[in-house]
Amino acid sequence: MTETGEETRTRSAQEDAADIYSEDGSIRSDFLAMVGAAIADRDLLFLRQHVARLHESELGDLIEAIQPDQRIALVRLLGDDFDLTALTEVDEGIRLQIVEHLPNAQIAAAIGDLDSDDAVYILEDLDHEDREEILAQLPFTERVRLRRALDYPESSAGRRMQTEFVAVPPFWTVGQTIDYMRDEEDLPESFTQIFVIDPTFKLLGTVDLDRILRTKRQVKIETIMRETSHSIPAEMDQEEASQLFEQYDLLSAAVVDENERLVGVLTIDDVVDVIQEEAEEDLMRLGGVGDEELSDSVVETSRSRVPWLAVNLFTAFVSASVISLFEATIEQVVALAILMPIVAGMGGNAGSQTMTVTVRALATRDLDIHNAWRVARREAGVGLINGVLFGCLVGIVAGFWFHDASIGGLITTAMLINMFAAAMAGITIPLLLHRTGADPAVSSAVFVTAITDTTGFFSFLGLATWWFMSS
Amino acid sequence: MTETGEETRTRSAQEDAADIYSEDGSIRSDFLAMVGAAIADRDLLFLRQHVARLHESELGDLIEAIQPDQRIALVRLLGDDFDLTALTEVDEGIRLQIVEHLPNAQIAAAIGDLDSDDAVYILEDLDHEDREEILAQLPFTERVRLRRALDYPESSAGRRMQTEFVAVPPFWTVGQTIDYMRDEEDLPESFTQIFVIDPTFKLLGTVDLDRILRTKRQVKIETIMRETSHSIPAEMDQEEASQLFEQYDLLSAAVVDENERLVGVLTIDDVVDVIQEEAEEDLMRLGGVGDEELSDSVVETSRSRVPWLAVNLFTAFVSASVISLFEATIEQVVALAILMPIVAGMGGNAGSQTMTVTVRALATRDLDIHNAWRVARREAGVGLINGVLFGCLVGIVAGFWFHDASIGGLITTAMLINMFAAAMAGITIPLLLHRTGADPAVSSAVFVTAITDTTGFFSFLGLATWWFMSS
Repeated sequence: MTETGEETRTRSAQEDAADIYSEDGSIRSDFLAMVGAAIADRDLLFLRQHVARLHESELGDLIEAIQPDQRIALVRLLGDDFDLTALTEVDEGIRLQIVEHLPNAQIAAAIGDLDSDDAVYILEDLDHEDREEILAQLPFTERVRLRRALDYPESSAGRRMQTEFVAVPPFWTVGQTIDYMRDEEDLPESFTQIFVIDPTFKLLGTVDLDRILRTKRQVKIETIMRETSHSIPAEMDQEEASQLFEQYDLLSAAVVDENERLVGVLTIDDVVDVIQEEAEEDLMRLGGVGDEELSDSVVETSRSRVPWLAVNLFTAFVSASVISLFEATIEQVVALAILMPIVAGMGGNAGSQTMTVTVRALATRDLDIHNAWRVARREAGVGLINGVLFGCLVGIVAGFWFHDASIGGLITTAMLINMFAAAMAGITIPLLLHRTGADPAVSSAVFVTAITDTTGFFSFLGLATWWFMSS
Repeated sequence: MTETGEETRTRSAQEDAADIYSEDGSIRSDFLAMVGAAIADRDLLFLRQHVARLHESELGDLIEAIQPDQRIALVRLLGDDFDLTALTEVDEGIRLQIVEHLPNAQIAAAIGDLDSDDAVYILEDLDHEDREEILAQLPFTERVRLRRALDYPESSAGRRMQTEFVAVPPFWTVGQTIDYMRDEEDLPESFTQIFVIDPTFKLLGTVDLDRILRTKRQVKIETIMRETSHSIPAEMDQEEASQLFEQYDLLSAAVVDENERLVGVLTIDDVVDVIQEEAEEDLMRLGGVGDEELSDSVVETSRSRVPWLAVNLFTAFVSASVISLFEATIEQVVALAILMPIVAGMGGNAGSQTMTVTVRALATRDLDIHNAWRVARREAGVGLINGVLFGCLVGIVAGFWFHDASIGGLITTAMLINMFAAAMAGITIPLLLHRTGADPAVSSAVFVTAITDTTGFFSFLGLATWWFMSS
């Protein structure tokens, strides 16, 4: 029975080996089922042929798609055939879960085969004790390299760099350099440029590989090297480093220590991940969620979302107390209670439009002191135009609804005031937060909503009180 | 006088030539002032030495930072010294403004020097007539290449690809290949891999440059080439192509036509821009703003934001009409009008948290049929826990505020109901929109708010009516 199951699995997996993904980008259900059955059957042949050979990112996707207990079983079954790099492609929660279940000896054995940046990525999440135990089992040079990278601050270029690189002296010729690369066994797995250094490892310049290939053998490296103005201090924050990559279309860049000595290389594939993470961070923060991951538990998720809700609750009570100032008016004209959420809500929407544009432009550095004033004027204009437009629209509908032209006039005025206030809040609050060094994405929304809610309620109910109570 | 001004400018610009940016990433004000003065003085020497030599992205930033009329003047003054590539780094509005003011002959002359992907980037925004006039002035092969790229759909890989590449037959040796690159004048400006093709230009494989450099001269290319499984159809959407780059850490990839023939190469620097654009798009859409740019005018911006506000206005009237159902109750218990925005608002915040996570996870393909059910269960749990937590909190405060325990009990129940509904709406609405092929980022927020507002008002006021009217 088992025999037949295995045979069928192997055959159908081979037929479709080309693609484990279905049209919508998720892993094919039949492949998942086959992997699940193979894990249950301890079918090593299938797992080695069809799972161990996957690209690291495919393996990562697979690990995320299967059940938690299957993950551990799979990694155990594959043993040394499991490519630890796949762990750099999964959620932190899943990575920790797997690493905790692996013996430190197996991790140490596998980590020696990884690029140093991937090794650091896995080691940095471990607790101190496990990390030291694993490092102790590594060869000396490997250990020193990894420890040096781990010594740099979290999210710094030094953490993300690869410590394997090709470096040559400036007086070598192109021919010597090529011969060196042909003979040397211990080259990085892949590279796109080589570095030129002096005897103290001070960085002198870089040469792209295509430059070497189009140059005659006898030419000296120093004549074709580019003096690099884009070397990256190891302490530099990864976000700043990624902005340099984007701005100057770099494929890789030298990472140097405080004495300008070459210590590693940062490559575009790591930078792409950073760019994704940073963009994701802005979006998540604007939506009021932190660093949570899909694999987080109910309690973890719930807890991480409480602070944002708590702050919003506070501002909600502030606007409620604004409403309570006008209790007497509402008692007499209930239409006000029905209409007031429209004034506040439309202000909130207009404010969040302006705020989104501002936060994004600050993140991409498109908004700065040179155009802030111009953009603020534009937003004021937009707030006025849309305030008049939607104010009149709402005024007409409200006037007919409650057969009362004065209610129409009041809500038109209040909407105009609130949408203008929303535009101003949407641009000034993120700018002020940015000025003070705070991250505008984290806290802008709370302040903007607080302003649009209170302004909306206060202007509408205040005007109504003045109108109805004095007439 | 002018003489002295120029001398001072030149000297101080040289001193700080290293960096035109100030600490916060904006262009240094003194450099901007010098450029402005040089434009006014028509100081060609300064402009050629300190502006024309900037990196294309620095020049782009400079163009965005100066006044609109200075932009035209600068480009005119620089003439052939102006690097048209800088236009690929500025807002579309600014690009069009400049291109419209340049004679087609100057554009045609400059476009010949650009990489084909940059040339397409500039040409695709022009109206048909101008584009044809410029193309007509280009050499034949150049024209054919660009027209072919422009024939591919907007946002396709074919539009973003570079048509310059190095391709060799499989039977060449490494030595022959290197010799070819040393002798050939017409190589792409930079490249990281070469392609292996048959006589009909059918793609056989790729070889990374570092692989060539570590291989002996006599080895045949076909023995070191990698059969590529990641070639990209020219019609493929750029977003899909960029996902392949991210997943497989590609630096460049072959673009092939419908007959698998090599037509171009897509490089990581273009893909990085696509990744940024796509992440920005999601963020902007969630915030209710479309493709607007910082340089858009008041009227353009105002118009582009109207649709989102109009849809939200509609849902605001729907929730207002829900409130109006309970007019009689509010008239008797005004506290309800004061507290009801808290119920609706907190639901809206909880809903937008869940929605943000869902939309992002769908965009990164982390959420699919295999874990949707698990994530939905988690969100339900989070909704319940936070509903109980904040429901009780608000209930206690409200009870004391209005000296009425029944109001506290009512709002606790309503909050629990609404925060659970918010969680369910936050996950199911983006999933459903995604299922139907719509972009969840564009329309999720409207639906989620509509649900949290109406549920919030209906549950709170409905419960209150039942309680106060029946007792």
